[in-house]
Amino acid sequence: MIRQLTIFGVGLIGGSLALALKKAGYCQHIIGCSRREDHLQRAVDLGVIDEYTLDPKAAVKTADMILLAVPMGAMEAIFKRIAGHLKEGAVITDAGSAKGSVVRAAQAAFGEVPPQFVPAHPIAGREKSSVEAALVDLYVGHKVILTPLETTNPQAIQKVRKMWHVAGAEVETLGVAQHDAVLAATSHLPHILAFSFVNSLSESPEHQAIFHYVAGGFKDFSRIASSDPVMWRDICLENKAGILVALDHYQKNLSELSILIANEDSEALLAAFAHAKTVRDRVID
Amino acid sequence: MIRQLTIFGVGLIGGSLALALKKAGYCQHIIGCSRREDHLQRAVDLGVIDEYTLDPKAAVKTADMILLAVPMGAMEAIFKRIAGHLKEGAVITDAGSAKGSVVRAAQAAFGEVPPQFVPAHPIAGREKSSVEAALVDLYVGHKVILTPLETTNPQAIQKVRKMWHVAGAEVETLGVAQHDAVLAATSHLPHILAFSFVNSLSESPEHQAIFHYVAGGFKDFSRIASSDPVMWRDICLENKAGILVALDHYQKNLSELSILIANEDSEALLAAFAHAKTVRDRVID
Repeated sequence: MIRQLTIFGVGLIGGSLALALKKAGYCQHIIGCSRREDHLQRAVDLGVIDEYTLDPKAAVKTADMILLAVPMGAMEAIFKRIAGHLKEGAVITDAGSAKGSVVRAAQAAFGEVPPQFVPAHPIAGREKSSVEAALVDLYVGHKVILTPLETTNPQAIQKVRKMWHVAGAEVETLGVAQHDAVLAATSHLPHILAFSFVNSLSESPEHQAIFHYVAGGFKDFSRIASSDPVMWRDICLENKAGILVALDHYQKNLSELSILIANEDSEALLAAFAHAKTVRDRVID
Repeated sequence: MIRQLTIFGVGLIGGSLALALKKAGYCQHIIGCSRREDHLQRAVDLGVIDEYTLDPKAAVKTADMILLAVPMGAMEAIFKRIAGHLKEGAVITDAGSAKGSVVRAAQAAFGEVPPQFVPAHPIAGREKSSVEAALVDLYVGHKVILTPLETTNPQAIQKVRKMWHVAGAEVETLGVAQHDAVLAATSHLPHILAFSFVNSLSESPEHQAIFHYVAGGFKDFSRIASSDPVMWRDICLENKAGILVALDHYQKNLSELSILIANEDSEALLAAFAHAKTVRDRVID
């Protein structure tokens, strides 16, 4: 049971958690905080949060659990605003898509990464990101990855784990670097490839005919290129190292495939495609 | 009205056309021909075709319309088997995903591209390719691209256009080279990128964790990597030129994006992602 939860950034991610915890009766009071009073008022009107404040210090002074569900570029500023104003025993967590940069932001703001800060990443989302899109069951059956450090307080980890579990998520643990490498490959890389795919077609001299005949894979393949550009710009900056490794790996694989096509290497092409199909079918099963 | 239609390769593509034409009462008699008697018997049992033969000459001798719906690598051998055995005024068409190679195959088999041959590409498909997957409405609302040459008989073009129109398709016309460039970009390229994406992840030292946490775009993005490896190997060989141009264009775009990430060029990244989103949203609208 959480007495007071404070959520920075009451959008899809923070709002959906609030709805799930309220429904489960697991949280007595939820305070929202951001710089957009109209958004916060809307969250109150929708019954997602109980009250709001624009003042980060006031938002955290009696909070038992603090969730930062803001764009990753905004994390450090919030850490700085709340440092020194936390209640004894308060737990801090976040919902950023990259963990190394959040840990570095906490270190910069607090001098060292606070033991009560549990970096976390709920792997769930929708194409819309506003509080209106919040769903009480957004996290049901989805994974939340915690990336605690060696210095993180085990009780704080347990409280964050329990909170996400109550919201319906499967909670797992990875190291910070491993999380960032894995998410770079499975989530960040395909978004970048999809953005690049659409841009590459749009630059073709045949772009009018190309977009007239979109089919055969375009729609599904490019869906994630309709994602929020600001969010993905931030992810590229915040998980630069992990993404560059995954991109480099991908570019090499694609170059090799390109050479197989140029050489009309029928057997090797068939082997490559069959391997991909086997892996993909097994993973989706 | 077609008196006798002969279909080489009675699978998803040929079978769906047969079902649509029968339903419309547009075809009196449909003969199937391939090397697989069990497949042909199954097509008869399902009511897709009226009869079959394993002999290409016998299949075409009284046919008014001949459709080659076989893998592209098999086109030239069929052209050779039927050359010199066609009825006066018979029209030949095909359903290959690349057109330059089919035109070259016809030229090789007949000495010159026959005026009554109308290269065509129905842009429709499903993940399954057998006759059991055939659908009477597969082509409804889908595009069929005809790529006639300057020497193609206008009446033959009109007959093929009418046939696909009766099946519910929107029939359009492109030049052979333009078709192959456009399809390379919109269909062939994303399939190759998806195969490469899955293989690239599977080669990562983190592949076990990566496939455990698949999410955030993986499923949609990799769906087409579950496509038939033989078909896509053939497409790579048959539309090599178009695909290599599209791939080269894509690789350059991706390299530029990679450099923007490495340089943390926030403004240019945002502009690139916003451009892709705008284009994609407009195209899908």
